[in-house]
Amino acid sequence: MQEQDTHVLSVQGIKRLPYYLKYLKELQTKGMEYVPAGAIAESLNIYEVQVRKDLAAVSSQPGKPRVGFSVDSLIADIEHFLGYDCAHTAALVGVGHLGKALMSYSGFADYGLDIAAAFDCDPALVGQCIHGCEVFPMERLSEICRQRKLLIGIITTPAPQAQGVCDALVRAGVRAIWNFAHVHLHVPKDVLVQNEDMAVSFALLSSKLAQTLRQE
Amino acid sequence: MQEQDTHVLSVQGIKRLPYYLKYLKELQTKGMEYVPAGAIAESLNIYEVQVRKDLAAVSSQPGKPRVGFSVDSLIADIEHFLGYDCAHTAALVGVGHLGKALMSYSGFADYGLDIAAAFDCDPALVGQCIHGCEVFPMERLSEICRQRKLLIGIITTPAPQAQGVCDALVRAGVRAIWNFAHVHLHVPKDVLVQNEDMAVSFALLSSKLAQTLRQE
Repeated sequence: MQEQDTHVLSVQGIKRLPYYLKYLKELQTKGMEYVPAGAIAESLNIYEVQVRKDLAAVSSQPGKPRVGFSVDSLIADIEHFLGYDCAHTAALVGVGHLGKALMSYSGFADYGLDIAAAFDCDPALVGQCIHGCEVFPMERLSEICRQRKLLIGIITTPAPQAQGVCDALVRAGVRAIWNFAHVHLHVPKDVLVQNEDMAVSFALLSSKLAQTLRQE
Repeated sequence: MQEQDTHVLSVQGIKRLPYYLKYLKELQTKGMEYVPAGAIAESLNIYEVQVRKDLAAVSSQPGKPRVGFSVDSLIADIEHFLGYDCAHTAALVGVGHLGKALMSYSGFADYGLDIAAAFDCDPALVGQCIHGCEVFPMERLSEICRQRKLLIGIITTPAPQAQGVCDALVRAGVRAIWNFAHVHLHVPKDVLVQNEDMAVSFALLSSKLAQTLRQE
């Protein structure tokens, strides 16, 4: 909410980006060089004003009158915005049920996101390959994160281990933490943290339902 | 965003409710009948104006000058808001990695939330007890949801099964769906759907990190 940047896009907007990308890549394959906002809007069943807003948030090209936007540039801009060029691969620590669920999740590919390596302290898990991703021992965290330039760390450990894992990830050069552990993490100023609190999501739905039932 | 109700509380606000509840219950145990907003604010390290806002969103009691809010009434109001009295138990369908992760998640208890029964079509899973929750065969979905008055359904099946499961939950009397499957669900007007799209969360973090790196 405190973001003060030209690149402000709502969660819904980010959700639309993969659809734009898919459509633009189809046009690129067909050899089309330019596309008007109206054509994107019509094909994807989104209001044109919304398309223009979304594209303005991710791209600085103004679009040419009559011909529209350069397809190649838009593709590059969207991929750039989503971090395809620098911030799309992650290390996951904690290969329990949730860790495995994320490693097996096929939806990430739509956003060019990839869990490149997983880590766990359980020797029984080390060496396993889950959905194409290998599980390494914790001792190799720093080496592999640095070697593969992994800048995102996903923490799916139990809460008591989360801060220690977070510290290790930060030491390994990770710049953004996606935290599923039910605990507040302390990080240096230049490290982003995004908390995924399942209980809050559940509570949101439950309180909405309670309101609905009361109104009936 | 379209909510037009006096009970509007931000996600952050809902996140604070369990802390209020915990503190108020401590006061109740000590036999205190009233508490001023300032005392709550100080104990929980939250701005008093924020405390007043949060409480106004969940409770209609104005608070008495000098003495503050009735502890018993506040507890009842917060529990009511969170749906403890009508909407706090759920049925989960799809006992894969994610399903098991949710069933094992201890954070729900802070909000009085509870996964009361789980369902799967895999006979190997049926009869298992995960974190105190039994896995039933799909054939018993309707019977158990109705018997236990489960109004929330959690869908953690693969995407192709999600709509069928959703339809079965709605037929079983469920009024709110928490959907983790990467698919758009069709439901009757009086059923709430909350989509939990992991890929969008990941993309949000990745795009924020990309922005940060570009600004450096």
